[in-house]
Amino acid sequence: MILIVYAHPHPGRSEANRVLLDAVRDLPSVRLHSLYDRYPDFSIDVQAEQALLEPARLVVWQHPLYWYSVPALLKLWFETVLVRGWAYGSGGTALAGKDCLWVTTTGATDEAYSPQGKHAHPFRAFMPPIEQTARFCAMNWLQPFTVHGAHKIDYEALAAHGRRYREVLQKYLSDHG
Amino acid sequence: MILIVYAHPHPGRSEANRVLLDAVRDLPSVRLHSLYDRYPDFSIDVQAEQALLEPARLVVWQHPLYWYSVPALLKLWFETVLVRGWAYGSGGTALAGKDCLWVTTTGATDEAYSPQGKHAHPFRAFMPPIEQTARFCAMNWLQPFTVHGAHKIDYEALAAHGRRYREVLQKYLSDHG
Repeated sequence: MILIVYAHPHPGRSEANRVLLDAVRDLPSVRLHSLYDRYPDFSIDVQAEQALLEPARLVVWQHPLYWYSVPALLKLWFETVLVRGWAYGSGGTALAGKDCLWVTTTGATDEAYSPQGKHAHPFRAFMPPIEQTARFCAMNWLQPFTVHGAHKIDYEALAAHGRRYREVLQKYLSDHG
Repeated sequence: MILIVYAHPHPGRSEANRVLLDAVRDLPSVRLHSLYDRYPDFSIDVQAEQALLEPARLVVWQHPLYWYSVPALLKLWFETVLVRGWAYGSGGTALAGKDCLWVTTTGATDEAYSPQGKHAHPFRAFMPPIEQTARFCAMNWLQPFTVHGAHKIDYEALAAHGRRYREVLQKYLSDHG
């Protein structure tokens, strides 16, 4: 089972993420879980979240990039769900061996993520906090899936990203039964 | 004026941060603003926060490191307070030229932050999202103030960090009137 933990602060205003989700939501064994729809008050049901994660073989963290990181509710989810004794530390093996795919969209183009660009760093410079969160829980970090320039590209280009996303998840399902 | 934007999810359980704050809270022109005390429900008063920031010459972001980043409420503060047209983008000059000091404590020791350590990266690898948030708002990024091994060091060592913190802020005040 693939669990998509989706964090868009304004799900109704999303374009790129909606196209991506529309491309995969009908796949068998894919479960979409929208954090901002479920917890608009930031009051996370930790046990329910942990129960959702348990049967997942692949955990997807999908969100637009906000201030070079995950939106606040997904950060709160990290802090409250991925706790010592469950996700790491003594006895904390609930996520060990699961795969983790980071799917993120950025408004800015690829060129903005360079030493000369307006974000001053290559995109990969913003990855360590997210990647290491997964790895510290003994998850396998897959090649991230990113869509840059989401505010600027047209529907056809977005749809192509959607097809690419579908292929990635389909291949995962076919490789892992 | 120095504004310390303090984000500890459990202020009562803080040790290292309390020692640091106790070392500076009596300084003239230092204002301490505890986000988790003010907004336990994550409902940030954006206008009040922007009004607090306006007179500050130095903005301090102080927090324990949670999952290699700022605690969720400080992340939400970035997203809701540092908005386009105020903090960046067209007309967004409210923070331009202010100084920004990142003060963070980590439970793990310095050695854990290395390719061989349990956090797999040098500490500076986790800095770009925070630093670039400040820089994107045209703030000057000062040398960060970090305390590693906060769970392990004794009170005397913590107190020494407190004195060092006080010196940094005192020097700032004396240099900037």
